[in-house]
Amino acid sequence: VQKKITPWRLGIQEQEPELQLVPPQRAAKLGKLHGALLVVASLIDKPTNLGLCRTCEIFGASALVLDTLRHVNDKNFQSLSVSAELWLPLLEVKPAELTEFLQVKKSEGYCIVGVEQTANSHSLQDYQFPEKTLLLLNEREGIPANLLQMLDVCVEIPQQGIIRSLNVHVSAALLIWEYTR
Amino acid sequence: VQKKITPWRLGIQEQEPELQLVPPQRAAKLGKLHGALLVVASLIDKPTNLGLCRTCEIFGASALVLDTLRHVNDKNFQSLSVSAELWLPLLEVKPAELTEFLQVKKSEGYCIVGVEQTANSHSLQDYQFPEKTLLLLNEREGIPANLLQMLDVCVEIPQQGIIRSLNVHVSAALLIWEYTR
Repeated sequence: VQKKITPWRLGIQEQEPELQLVPPQRAAKLGKLHGALLVVASLIDKPTNLGLCRTCEIFGASALVLDTLRHVNDKNFQSLSVSAELWLPLLEVKPAELTEFLQVKKSEGYCIVGVEQTANSHSLQDYQFPEKTLLLLNEREGIPANLLQMLDVCVEIPQQGIIRSLNVHVSAALLIWEYTR
Repeated sequence: VQKKITPWRLGIQEQEPELQLVPPQRAAKLGKLHGALLVVASLIDKPTNLGLCRTCEIFGASALVLDTLRHVNDKNFQSLSVSAELWLPLLEVKPAELTEFLQVKKSEGYCIVGVEQTANSHSLQDYQFPEKTLLLLNEREGIPANLLQMLDVCVEIPQQGIIRSLNVHVSAALLIWEYTR
């Protein structure tokens, strides 16, 4: 019988007793309190953009949501994360489950924020994030229509150049930075 | 005889007349004025971090300095840059030439800024960048001592997590964003 394990806790057993706590407890014990920012990366295709895990941990996001927790066993993911995956709670939500997940989070009081240029987008320069923020990320093609209609707020990053859009890890980092500011 | 060409202008000849102008002129004609932010990436080792080219172009940096312009011919660089290398002036300054380059830029009135945690570092949250800013980037090992002493200002990014430092592309993006803010 294969034992079901939570991949982000792999390897913790052999470390100091402190490290055997689940991430939020460990973080609290070290005086690192997690905020209420949920970063949803289930729509991100390119594994290199999951270096996002490191950025989320550093700025105290409450959790990073991935399409599959299998990423955690990937050498490249581990190299990009520089062990952040041991400190940051990771959740698995497949793209097909996102509608339901966003619905649950809405009912828990989360404000669903997307990075999109629309007629009603708020500029990142002026936008004040609510404490309970769920950031829904996406690569080039934009957020699918069924999820787009679930967003409470669209935020856009003012850009001066000719190229159309930032890399998703970079845009996410700017939003996470502004959330913690 | 091999003709010496500036790699960032490669391929422009076959495009529209507008694209035959050198980048600053093209940018100005399109109403995209470049600022006075020089981003120096000569000390960056990992080619994936040169996706920075895209970020620099989007936020209107005046130029990106690389250890070699050969990067521009690299398929991976081109894929990360999504054509930003055609719009953003690129300069070649080898690591060994950096001392001289920084000296020249200092004499032109540039403030040399590094991202380092020191006793006298300014927090990115409060720091006001001067117009003429040269941002000297570095990966893990930090800025070499001979260059460190040439910095006018050290800026640090306040972090809440357990992991020690952000990826260099992400930290650069946050500084560039704050410069344009």
